[in-house]
Amino acid sequence: MRTGVWLVGARGSVATTSIVGALALRAGLAEPTGCVTELPALRSAALPALGDLVFGGHDVVATPLVKKAEALAAAGVLPPRLVTALAEELAGVEREVRPVPTGGRQAGTIAAITADLTGFRARHGLDRVVMVNVSTTEPVPPTHPGHADLATLTAVLEAGQAVLPPSAGYAFAAFTAGCAYVDFTPSTGARLPALAELAARERLPYAGHDGKTGETLVKSVLAPMFAMRNLRVRTWSGVNLLGGGDGANLAEPAANAAKAASKQRVLGETLGYVPQGTTRIEYVEDIGDFKTAWDLVTFSGFLGIPMRMEFTWHGCDSALAAPLVLDLARLTAAAHVAGRTGPLTELGFFFKDPLGSVADSGATAETEGFGGVAETGGGHALAEQWAALRGLVRRLDATVGRDGTGHTGDACGRDEAGDAVGRDGAGDAIAA
Amino acid sequence: MRTGVWLVGARGSVATTSIVGALALRAGLAEPTGCVTELPALRSAALPALGDLVFGGHDVVATPLVKKAEALAAAGVLPPRLVTALAEELAGVEREVRPVPTGGRQAGTIAAITADLTGFRARHGLDRVVMVNVSTTEPVPPTHPGHADLATLTAVLEAGQAVLPPSAGYAFAAFTAGCAYVDFTPSTGARLPALAELAARERLPYAGHDGKTGETLVKSVLAPMFAMRNLRVRTWSGVNLLGGGDGANLAEPAANAAKAASKQRVLGETLGYVPQGTTRIEYVEDIGDFKTAWDLVTFSGFLGIPMRMEFTWHGCDSALAAPLVLDLARLTAAAHVAGRTGPLTELGFFFKDPLGSVADSGATAETEGFGGVAETGGGHALAEQWAALRGLVRRLDATVGRDGTGHTGDACGRDEAGDAVGRDGAGDAIAA
Amino acid sequence: MRTGVWLVGARGSVATTSIVGALALRAGLAEPTGCVTELPALRSAALPALGDLVFGGHDVVATPLVKKAEALAAAGVLPPRLVTALAEELAGVEREVRPVPTGGRQAGTIAAITADLTGFRARHGLDRVVMVNVSTTEPVPPTHPGHADLATLTAVLEAGQAVLPPSAGYAFAAFTAGCAYVDFTPSTGARLPALAELAARERLPYAGHDGKTGETLVKSVLAPMFAMRNLRVRTWSGVNLLGGGDGANLAEPAANAAKAASKQRVLGETLGYVPQGTTRIEYVEDIGDFKTAWDLVTFSGFLGIPMRMEFTWHGCDSALAAPLVLDLARLTAAAHVAGRTGPLTELGFFFKDPLGSVADSGATAETEGFGGVAETGGGHALAEQWAALRGLVRRLDATVGRDGTGHTGDACGRDEAGDAVGRDGAGDAIAA
Amino acid sequence: MRTGVWLVGARGSVATTSIVGALALRAGLAEPTGCVTELPALRSAALPALGDLVFGGHDVVATPLVKKAEALAAAGVLPPRLVTALAEELAGVEREVRPVPTGGRQAGTIAAITADLTGFRARHGLDRVVMVNVSTTEPVPPTHPGHADLATLTAVLEAGQAVLPPSAGYAFAAFTAGCAYVDFTPSTGARLPALAELAARERLPYAGHDGKTGETLVKSVLAPMFAMRNLRVRTWSGVNLLGGGDGANLAEPAANAAKAASKQRVLGETLGYVPQGTTRIEYVEDIGDFKTAWDLVTFSGFLGIPMRMEFTWHGCDSALAAPLVLDLARLTAAAHVAGRTGPLTELGFFFKDPLGSVADSGATAETEGFGGVAETGGGHALAEQWAALRGLVRRLDATVGRDGTGHTGDACGRDEAGDAVGRDGAGDAIAA
Ligand SMILES: NC(=O)c1ccc[n+]([C@@H]2O[C@H](COP(=O)([O-])OP(=O)(O)OC[C@H]3O[C@@H](n4cnc5c(N)ncnc54)[C@H](O)[C@@H]3O)[C@@H](O)[C@H]2O)c1
Ligand SMILES: NC(=O)c1ccc[n+]([C@@H]2O[C@H](COP(=O)([O-])OP(=O)(O)OC[C@H]3O[C@@H](n4cnc5c(N)ncnc54)[C@H](O)[C@@H]3O)[C@@H](O)[C@H]2O)c1
Ligand SMILES: NC(=O)c1ccc[n+]([C@@H]2O[C@H](COP(=O)([O-])OP(=O)(O)OC[C@H]3O[C@@H](n4cnc5c(N)ncnc54)[C@H](O)[C@@H]3O)[C@@H](O)[C@H]2O)c1
Ligand SMILES: NC(=O)c1ccc[n+]([C@@H]2O[C@H](COP(=O)([O-])OP(=O)(O)OC[C@H]3O[C@@H](n4cnc5c(N)ncnc54)[C@H](O)[C@@H]3O)[C@@H](O)[C@H]2O)c1
Ligand code: NA
Ligand code: NA
Repeated sequence: MRTGVWLVGARGSVATTSIVGALALRAGLAEPTGCVTELPALRSAALPALGDLVFGGHDVVATPLVKKAEALAAAGVLPPRLVTALAEELAGVEREVRPVPTGGRQAGTIAAITADLTGFRARHGLDRVVMVNVSTTEPVPPTHPGHADLATLTAVLEAGQAVLPPSAGYAFAAFTAGCAYVDFTPSTGARLPALAELAARERLPYAGHDGKTGETLVKSVLAPMFAMRNLRVRTWSGVNLLGGGDGANLAEPAANAAKAASKQRVLGETLGYVPQGTTRIEYVEDIGDFKTAWDLVTFSGFLGIPMRMEFTWHGCDSALAAPLVLDLARLTAAAHVAGRTGPLTELGFFFKDPLGSVADSGATAETEGFGGVAETGGGHALAEQWAALRGLVRRLDATVGRDGTGHTGDACGRDEAGDAVGRDGAGDAIAA
Repeated sequence: MRTGVWLVGARGSVATTSIVGALALRAGLAEPTGCVTELPALRSAALPALGDLVFGGHDVVATPLVKKAEALAAAGVLPPRLVTALAEELAGVEREVRPVPTGGRQAGTIAAITADLTGFRARHGLDRVVMVNVSTTEPVPPTHPGHADLATLTAVLEAGQAVLPPSAGYAFAAFTAGCAYVDFTPSTGARLPALAELAARERLPYAGHDGKTGETLVKSVLAPMFAMRNLRVRTWSGVNLLGGGDGANLAEPAANAAKAASKQRVLGETLGYVPQGTTRIEYVEDIGDFKTAWDLVTFSGFLGIPMRMEFTWHGCDSALAAPLVLDLARLTAAAHVAGRTGPLTELGFFFKDPLGSVADSGATAETEGFGGVAETGGGHALAEQWAALRGLVRRLDATVGRDGTGHTGDACGRDEAGDAVGRDGAGDAIAA
Repeated sequence: MRTGVWLVGARGSVATTSIVGALALRAGLAEPTGCVTELPALRSAALPALGDLVFGGHDVVATPLVKKAEALAAAGVLPPRLVTALAEELAGVEREVRPVPTGGRQAGTIAAITADLTGFRARHGLDRVVMVNVSTTEPVPPTHPGHADLATLTAVLEAGQAVLPPSAGYAFAAFTAGCAYVDFTPSTGARLPALAELAARERLPYAGHDGKTGETLVKSVLAPMFAMRNLRVRTWSGVNLLGGGDGANLAEPAANAAKAASKQRVLGETLGYVPQGTTRIEYVEDIGDFKTAWDLVTFSGFLGIPMRMEFTWHGCDSALAAPLVLDLARLTAAAHVAGRTGPLTELGFFFKDPLGSVADSGATAETEGFGGVAETGGGHALAEQWAALRGLVRRLDATVGRDGTGHTGDACGRDEAGDAVGRDGAGDAIAA
Repeated sequence: MRTGVWLVGARGSVATTSIVGALALRAGLAEPTGCVTELPALRSAALPALGDLVFGGHDVVATPLVKKAEALAAAGVLPPRLVTALAEELAGVEREVRPVPTGGRQAGTIAAITADLTGFRARHGLDRVVMVNVSTTEPVPPTHPGHADLATLTAVLEAGQAVLPPSAGYAFAAFTAGCAYVDFTPSTGARLPALAELAARERLPYAGHDGKTGETLVKSVLAPMFAMRNLRVRTWSGVNLLGGGDGANLAEPAANAAKAASKQRVLGETLGYVPQGTTRIEYVEDIGDFKTAWDLVTFSGFLGIPMRMEFTWHGCDSALAAPLVLDLARLTAAAHVAGRTGPLTELGFFFKDPLGSVADSGATAETEGFGGVAETGGGHALAEQWAALRGLVRRLDATVGRDGTGHTGDACGRDEAGDAVGRDGAGDAIAA
């Protein structure tokens, strides 16, 4: 199943690391460390093979991929030997990275993006294309009535207005082109009722928001630990020091606000209350692509005795993000094949601010219930999200034959399946 | 259901904190922070109420409980106001704390301990008594053929030999007296084939080993995080600085060895491989009852990029341990009532070095499987252990009537129930 | 030499801790830990004894000192036994804590404060009174022409205008009453040309600004370490989490700005360049009086190899500040006696943002010179400041007789002494 | 002044980094970051220029320098571009790296080493040669009467006994060849009365022990901070995790003991008492050449209030050590020229366990005196050591003409100069 991965922000750090990594894995030059779909528990014939992924994308800058890869190698994000070894393959991908259509009205831009996507699919004879947004985080946009329903939105766009933030424009184009959409950023993306409507109409799945790679990942296991032990978290305060392109942008108060909100959500939803403290993001150019996050947690134990924990996380954001981008592309493509539509809530494992609820996502009663909202389906605890993800992979698995070569053609939802056939008729239903 | 809790090491820090805490909770003077059986998800009418617990125990020292409690208050482990308010109740418990029988042969000591237990049960008209070992950690004892089967052991003891370490002697006495046994320490306790035989014969449940309160607790959520994300942990090195009575003892190389082994087990069993590094325990008198643990974790991400995390945990060990002692006493007593016998593997949540396997403990397929051995049932990940614990509480719950006042009398095992009736006929089976 | 200490903000945390501490030391109930004037190297007969300090002050709130002391004891800042033991003495000090005169014009307020000071001195027959500002940090005030010279200022005040921030009004009153003035806060205090003129006219010494108690103290030894080793600091970023009254105020952006500026000064002046990064102050109510500061330092070593250091400081601000308040009162009173006027630059050891330069303060060539500006007299390195302080104490020492009972009457400045006689004729000159 | 630097352990990490660094500096390919003799305050015409250093040495292994340099580059210790650029120069140095003479009696080995040194000096027409020991740390050797005086030692060696540890054998050879000796390791080196006698007879200076590069460096500024503030350090506990060749060796208990002792000395000597706690060294292969040290300090403030600080140091040991090796070679050569003999106590700045006392080393009264023994001249505080080092450079400076081209020939000691003429007549005395 040759599958297209269309990266918005294709010349950025995360995108370039994803591309180099996929090429390295295909060439047998690296281990799939960090790829969760390569864990024994999640391997599935329903997923396109890493070697079957074909890359393309948009970016507003023109730096050649190989130059960006060399810069990442110099910064310690990529092993230099891989960049050298894969220069030719990178030049191949380069041909499929397009400038962002500009100039005219937003409707025209969206149409041009749609055409780029269908052209890419046709040129490479791809079964499916998944668009993944890894471009610069946008400020939170002003609301507009056109966001609320598809008819209004279409009318407004046709009237020449530009009412969508770029990420939502990309999602609109993806759905129009029959592509699934994943948002790895905190930007708006598909998170508008009008776009949900469009995805439903086109029978397409989508996923997001904001890849969970560092401090929030740690929070998503520590907060449940405190909850499961009935320890009362009093404060949780943190600071993230980061450089790199993403850091510079997040230093802008507007982008920062979007991100910081994503980062604290896990606490309230896992603990059932919001402890004091905030998470700050600070841009420090010299830190570069390796982020340092420090968190202090103060909590009360038995009889109110005060205790504390602190941690420092020193991670390379792009190297943490890239394998997840590959995982998401594979999982979303397989979900598309299997006929899933709407938000893929079982992919909360990958996100700081996951779409939808996990109420019907496969988390069993045993894994829920230590926190407050968790009892009613919050689902921010990593182990719960793992269970949901595993459930998804099992259901996808059930759609393919024993030999892994194709689909069984059987319904695979738990109860409500059968009628939910994928847009192109190839897949059978998995109810979400 | 008035339930006895017999504490071995009753005048120690953990024991005294447990007693003061239970009295404070009964008197409505404190919140049940730290008690996991008070979480909404784990509350059950099958458990004896906190107010129904009756305390007694053995110790080799004679410091009055109230003096020990005052010392703990001065050290910040107990709120001074509680010690003042509960002085009278503490004096009541004092009457049930006995010196450790000494002098004669080990068989005699065991018989004297057994008599202390049955006397305690009779005096207070208790439905059940659970012995909890919270005494000083012992060195690993030399092996002896008598450990391997009950007949040999009985013969050897009757012949006047002292072949059991004290903790195993206590377990022998508990089982002989018809009491369940919990080992909160890394000592031998019931962990000998001969004692397993005795527990089985007497149809008694037991649990252990080594309460999981600090650094290992954190490991049990962080190691699964790395595993679930397919990140390769390269080293995990830590140091535990602690003072207090337990610290002084653990500074002895022999006791230290037992403890350090407990502490690393979680890594191998959760990750499926053993990273480099060790966990050291260092006694620093001035640190007192608040332990500081520091851990460094280095790991590789995508394409082998090196990253690192460190954490500092600053916790009050006794305040972390005490509510778990109460939880364990409640759960084990309820399991006894419900007819459970042998190791309570579902209580792994509480222990560094849990007894038995979780293969049949209620963990569902969804919660397993990210690590190596986890796939085959290792079960050291906290979320898996939570699921197993929750499953146990559900099954216990099913044994009591809707109104919570008594037992249904129905079998409650999944398949193999019915025949496993508790020693005193009061409970029905839950197969372990 | 009975010496008055008049505390502005007398009911605050720092003030109350200072008072309780001085009373405890006088009563022999505590060791002088944290008092640098009690170190063998700095002990001097020229300093008033701790037992000779007499306290009074102003505050805008009315909480009795003993209530505040009890609250501090509950928060772990003061040992409860001391508060109990000293209740009576505290009630004695209580009588000398006055409400802040309010209502009328600023000139009137200043006059009333002056009267409070002279009344206090007379009532207790004090040789000297030192005013120490430990009140809430003020926002940076707007500039006004009256700040620039005394004649204008006097005229403007007499015309009924309120052009001074409160701290400067207190300094004006202190100088008018013939009292030395110390500013332990980052507020304006005596830091206006008009007030320098007044202090000079009245032949009075003063000192400030902003007590150096936590993270900045650590910076003042670590930054010189990097400088002396020729290691290039690339970034220095930190966060201070604090609760308590001071924390709540510093959460106000205006006060925060004043404080954060103080905190970074040490880096530029010690290193000779300003590394990237900022120091943030965050108010977290639950943290209370114990501040947690975390700093990350990244630096380059030989051949540009990148390295890093981080530290966490967990200190009780009031307990760090209080002994310094006592030290400053003793040193400033002795300097006053010895005829010193103007800024006491040798007291930079105590401050984040010290007044004046150390060019002529006793630091020898050997202790200078590793950094950039240090070469020209910056003097923010703690060891240099220690040397300057030690030089001051030696010169003060030279003004008193061998038996420590009185002054020698000899000039003690290095060159320019002799003519600089204290306002009240009691002291002889030490040139600053 | 062309100066030889003879490295014992010439193929090790520190040696190779020193050589590559010196070549890079000479070629203008790098900044002298980390070289303290390049600070404005310490620059002196009395020191040989970096470009005038000529390298040679001994090692027991045969790995070519360029191979070692490549390995260090791969490990992040050296910038790869420098190794590439300097390959030819490295091959030049290679010719002067000799295998360690072995086989015969120790007297013979020493003679062979001596011959290697004099050959090297002659071949390159060097003014001076300094031997620097950067070889593997030895276990503490058994004592032997021959260590106590030169006559006995000579007799014993001539009798065919091997009574010196290798490092002392090297020092014997250096002194015999008229070379100064620096010990950068904790090994015995010149630290034997017999060798002191030999150095005195040959009028040679020497320095040591154990380069101060990481955690101990930090201690040498933090401990004085606590002392100067009269804060009572209660515990100071640390762990050093390190890999690399040195780490593997230090994992041997014997070598570890020598090192750990060095590391704690600074505390007792700076504070005047020894706090609780220990420093542990742990070998973790994966950590490689970047050491991570974590230290916890608990201390009491005013009225006994407990506080704490912790720090993590993540440094590249070889990159920290190498510039100091160059500094030490330059300073020791200049001291030799200037006629200094015996231990160079003013070089304590560079060492964990400095030779001799600083009583007469140029530290002024102002910089001493906050600690206990410091009062009597301990001199472990970095700022004191800096002052002593600066004093030495000034005195060396005074021995050369204004134009920096040659020596003035004037006496330069403070009182006792004049008579102390260097062995080869080139230098005049500086009394130590
Ligand atoms: N790396 C992580 O761990 C992580 C985690 C969560 C989310 N994210 C998000 O992923 C995104 C990418 O991060 P990065 O580090 O690669 O940033 P980056 O700055 O390196 O790359 C972003 C790229 O997007 C391009 N771009 C900007 N506007 C665009 C537009 N309108 N259309 C197409 N391309 C556009 C930029 O030119 C740039 O090449 C960010 O939004 C970041 O917040 C990253
Ligand atoms: N506190 C924790 O977080 C924690 C976690 C895991 C395990 N543990 C274990 O719990 C145990 C108790 O810890 P603690 O801090 O209360 O220690 P402690 O030293 O304060 O108390 C131990 C008590 O056991 C008594 N004792 C010793 N030998 C005995 C014997 N033969 N019979 C009866 N009593 C005996 C001692 O006199 C003492 O009063 C230790 O083994 C410890 O390793 C504690
Ligand atoms: N504690 C430290 O380590 C430290 C270090 C440096 C500076 N400081 C400064 O010391 C000051 C005191 O700190 P704190 O923790 O005691 O704060 P606090 O809030 O406990 O006390 C301040 C007191 O000042 C009083 N006050 C406010 N305005 C006043 C006025 N106009 N006249 C008289 N009194 C007034 C308040 O009522 C309060 O009682 C702050 O400015 C703080 O920034 C403290
Ligand atoms: N790097 C630092 O920060 C630092 C600080 C203080 C002290 N030191 C000391 O410096 C020394 C060198 O450290 P390193 O990291 O370079 O170690 P290393 O293991 O890389 O190098 C030591 C070298 O010495 C050689 N050697 C061993 N025995 C020898 C002998 N008898 N004669 C000649 N050569 C011999 C070895 O073959 C090796 O090449 C160690 O003793 C270490 O403790 C290093
Ligand atoms: Na840390
Ligand atoms: Na830390």
